Amino acid sequence: MKLPIITSEAELTHRLVRRRQTLDAMAPSVETILARVRNDGDAALRELTEQYDGIEVADLAVPPTVLAQAKKGLPQDVMAALSVAADNIRRFNEAVRPQSTSLTQPDGIEVARRWRPINRVGVYIPGGRYPLLSTVLMNVIPAQVAGVREIAVCTPPGPAGYPSATILGVCAFLGIEEVYQVGGAQAVGALAYGTETIRPVDKITGPGNAYVAQAKQLVSATVSIDMLAGPTEVVVLADGSANPRWVAGDLISQAEHDPLAWPVLITDSPDLAREVNRCLDELLVNLSTRATAEASLLENGLVFLGSDWAACLAAVNTIAPEHLCLQTDQPDQWLDEVQAGAIFVGGSTPVAWGDYWAGPNHILPTAGQARFRGPLSVSDFLVPYSVIKATRAATSSSGLQVMILAEQEGLAGHALSIALRREDA
Amino acid sequence: MKLPIITSEAELTHRLVRRRQTLDAMAPSVETILARVRNDGDAALRELTEQYDGIEVADLAVPPTVLAQAKKGLPQDVMAALSVAADNIRRFNEAVRPQSTSLTQPDGIEVARRWRPINRVGVYIPGGRYPLLSTVLMNVIPAQVAGVREIAVCTPPGPAGYPSATILGVCAFLGIEEVYQVGGAQAVGALAYGTETIRPVDKITGPGNAYVAQAKQLVSATVSIDMLAGPTEVVVLADGSANPRWVAGDLISQAEHDPLAWPVLITDSPDLAREVNRCLDELLVNLSTRATAEASLLENGLVFLGSDWAACLAAVNTIAPEHLCLQTDQPDQWLDEVQAGAIFVGGSTPVAWGDYWAGPNHILPTAGQARFRGPLSVSDFLVPYSVIKATRAATSSSGLQVMILAEQEGLAGHALSIALRREDA
Repeated sequence: MKLPIITSEAELTHRLVRRRQTLDAMAPSVETILARVRNDGDAALRELTEQYDGIEVADLAVPPTVLAQAKKGLPQDVMAALSVAADNIRRFNEAVRPQSTSLTQPDGIEVARRWRPINRVGVYIPGGRYPLLSTVLMNVIPAQVAGVREIAVCTPPGPAGYPSATILGVCAFLGIEEVYQVGGAQAVGALAYGTETIRPVDKITGPGNAYVAQAKQLVSATVSIDMLAGPTEVVVLADGSANPRWVAGDLISQAEHDPLAWPVLITDSPDLAREVNRCLDELLVNLSTRATAEASLLENGLVFLGSDWAACLAAVNTIAPEHLCLQTDQPDQWLDEVQAGAIFVGGSTPVAWGDYWAGPNHILPTAGQARFRGPLSVSDFLVPYSVIKATRAATSSSGLQVMILAEQEGLAGHALSIALRREDA
Repeated sequence: MKLPIITSEAELTHRLVRRRQTLDAMAPSVETILARVRNDGDAALRELTEQYDGIEVADLAVPPTVLAQAKKGLPQDVMAALSVAADNIRRFNEAVRPQSTSLTQPDGIEVARRWRPINRVGVYIPGGRYPLLSTVLMNVIPAQVAGVREIAVCTPPGPAGYPSATILGVCAFLGIEEVYQVGGAQAVGALAYGTETIRPVDKITGPGNAYVAQAKQLVSATVSIDMLAGPTEVVVLADGSANPRWVAGDLISQAEHDPLAWPVLITDSPDLAREVNRCLDELLVNLSTRATAEASLLENGLVFLGSDWAACLAAVNTIAPEHLCLQTDQPDQWLDEVQAGAIFVGGSTPVAWGDYWAGPNHILPTAGQARFRGPLSVSDFLVPYSVIKATRAATSSSGLQVMILAEQEGLAGHALSIALRREDA
């Protein structure tokens, strides 16, 4: 393996822009699909599933017996591991669940921010190369911790008929009863607009391919979405102290997801760069996912060799990656200097801990979105609202000042609404 | 005034759907404007400003001397009221500022959710009927409390040349130095894509007309936005104990914003409905904003007369309004039963307290968006991120279970990345 080595920030930015342009150019137009679902409901879902998945589905809803069967079919050791992972994810989301806050202002007005769960959420679980059972955990558990009453899952049917038994089994394990076998942009349309079988939701979460992402953006005027997922990315920021086999392992574990995945090493050590290239070859030899991992590494893989450590940190922030591994001497010191969706601290922390186990979410901002949004969490399933309670005393003490501001804006009715309380109080 | 009285939930839903369809149909297409800004930068901004605002601007950036002058020009009593309002808004946002959380899982893995401010934010302040100085406070102060380093304001130029002196004065009062005199969809394009003069931002916040809202949705794949603002709405939920003059005052204070504003009374008391209609006439007589308020009340105003209190609560939740006034006997008891962006508790709390003064934001979800998102706040200007730190002990104790989950998904590289730590540990 010979990942290209670049050394200038300008070259990095150029590649970043080109990557985003290439991905944008690949984004399909799904307006027609959404319009068909909006107009023809279930009939459109059946036709589109036949057209894109090549499958004639009998029931759009997966029957309860099929869900129960799938749960029974999960191997014992998988079930045991799932239980611990689910507990960890639940514990983390309970810890970060936002709390209500209240405050009395100096003039006696009571103000509060309170939270309520979203009523109804739609979760999209992709089909594709691998049955991502962990994605079910990562969507459903935060919603359950928030107290969402209705969770509907959409996932594409498999070649054998029903969707992946692993996905269905994990849904059943989590107590989800509402699962629809529909995928792609048509699933997003169904969740946003509703059909005869699928009632519309208030928010759609979960990753998906370019079709799903574009559909989510298009429906985002009607319904809330979590984020627009792009191909996965990892940046390993490493100095000369890093273990090159570990670095190579983390690059491969992202690369195997997708030929479009973006595995990047940022380092100030030419020796490490050389060693990592050597280890990649060694580790790929017997890997069952070698074809995909190699495609991603060859087409998109990259080493940024910084002239100094500051250049390395700047390169990280130019990318604002989804996953950032800090494999350096004393890695904690860089936490406040970098922007990324999730940060994996120290060589002993592979990204895989975050994918399955540690508790924080693996649904993370890609394509530089870490500049403005974070991982999916319980917060995405709760809605804040304000509560304001004034008193007659406040009307007397502050009312005139509020009226001055209203009048400065020309809003006479606003001033009037305060004046009425002063008169009648 | 004779607001139409409807009594069935079906009729309410029908009106709601028709209102949303009417507003959707009015949404202009702004793709061409965005493309011009993206391709031609400053030149496009100048041309579009001449085309839509009828103004030839010299400098796109408002000069520091003009800002300083505008601040000096604010009347003393306005400045005094602004200072108290700003303190209240700052105190509230400091109270609700999210805090970092950390946790050690049973196997010793340390996980945390931390927060950092967004680097660069663009704030849109509309021109239009009224110079909304309070909108400057409501956007800028939460961003400042979050620690956002760069805040750029865009606001359209006025007929006399520079934008409203009130808006500019309040920007200067808050220490904002970067103000551009550009409005509409072209301002959103400039903030999203950047031009020679305006560097692109990471997030765009602030209300605007249908052009601005559509532009925000279109750029939302590139940059974060707060929400898509529609015309303002108020629901007053009142029983027979409510003061009809206060109810009428609150309906008028929303109606005067815009002929498209939606003032709604929901009550189980026919007497109150009649009295409110009478008070509306009385209060409108001498109001300087009568034309707009009357247009909104006549075209969109509505009384929902519920057969019982449960029907009234259901009607509130069907609308999920931006503003909800609870003017009932013991109003606190309904807080957990309703969904709305901001709730004003009791007759002594006009909406105007929330527009200017109490601390929570007046930038609120409209058009039913309260189902899934809340008021603008300091949280919108902070980005959460995950931190995961594993130990060798955890690799030994949990590593095999994580590998089982990875293998169940077929992700051999993920399992490998854990196995490498177990071998080399």
